[in-house]
Amino acid sequence: MVDGTGQHGRQRGEGPRRQGEIFDAALSLLAENGYERLTIEAIAERSTVNKTTIYRWWPSKAALLGAALVGTPALRFDVPDTGSLRGDLEALVDAVLALLTKPPAADVAVAALAAAAHSPELAVHARTFFADRLARENPVFERAATRGELPPDADPTLLMDLLAGAVWVRVVLRQTPIGEDFARRTVSFVLDGVRPR
Amino acid sequence: MVDGTGQHGRQRGEGPRRQGEIFDAALSLLAENGYERLTIEAIAERSTVNKTTIYRWWPSKAALLGAALVGTPALRFDVPDTGSLRGDLEALVDAVLALLTKPPAADVAVAALAAAAHSPELAVHARTFFADRLARENPVFERAATRGELPPDADPTLLMDLLAGAVWVRVVLRQTPIGEDFARRTVSFVLDGVRPR
Repeated sequence: MVDGTGQHGRQRGEGPRRQGEIFDAALSLLAENGYERLTIEAIAERSTVNKTTIYRWWPSKAALLGAALVGTPALRFDVPDTGSLRGDLEALVDAVLALLTKPPAADVAVAALAAAAHSPELAVHARTFFADRLARENPVFERAATRGELPPDADPTLLMDLLAGAVWVRVVLRQTPIGEDFARRTVSFVLDGVRPR
Repeated sequence: MVDGTGQHGRQRGEGPRRQGEIFDAALSLLAENGYERLTIEAIAERSTVNKTTIYRWWPSKAALLGAALVGTPALRFDVPDTGSLRGDLEALVDAVLALLTKPPAADVAVAALAAAAHSPELAVHARTFFADRLARENPVFERAATRGELPPDADPTLLMDLLAGAVWVRVVLRQTPIGEDFARRTVSFVLDGVRPR
């Protein structure tokens, strides 16, 4: 709710140094008002960074949001190393679950990802966000392959799409309660398959 | 919100009869302009149904969209009966894929579901949409249980969340190309699991 009335000048040329505040302003405004009502002007006002400065670094709100998605600490999570593929995947499902359900990060994550669904320009940046995320998760699959838990032709991207997708559908789209053991049951499906009895 | 501009009369009681045109107008405007800019006024204008009439049937744009999501033929797909659980699930994945990628239905489906992610009121209706969808898919799982392809404690809801979620993440959020055999590979993950070699 900061409004830089007559305080510009101070921030001139400080783009990179005050990047965190610009990202915070962009993401909180996105969560509050949605992508369509988001403007660089409002981001400038809330972050008290001059809008000319913001435009110098990011030519559009989509470009700024894309950078914010990848750069904000709010949407990061530690990559687990539990000693088993099953344990790591359960931890990843819990991390995605926390990201999409625990405010304030959840409001931002859901709003930004949902906005990407209908803005082609933002979608480009959502792709970067996911590629960045998958690159971070890669050690989980490399370690699993080394331990012999994953066949050489397994597709880690599809595996993560299944797990993250189940969380998205359940808590964002379907919005129905999940049990305590959601991560365990979800991971069991993709690792163990369906075994008729 | 209601402000009857004295034009009711002509459409009195025609709500159900012209429902299809109201739904079409609501969904096409949603796809074009997004949820935030959608108004009952614009829906009235495009469908040429008086807005007082629309308000009489649905008290808000969220209520109208919820009814449109469940009621529109554009978002329906036939429930497959291929003779095997694997075949039925692959057909369902292909149907979800078509729903989320083939215009004009895809624009509507993606816009409506994405909007549900950040409108609590619309989310209520999105839940109805998914419950309705799952009820339609139920015969697939009943037949599979009868054929012995599904253990009694299998969770069809979670299975569909995984499959539909993988499609959503891949084509809506991540927006990366999918191969010809996406349905086969995705279904294989949840039915066969990961078999180390």
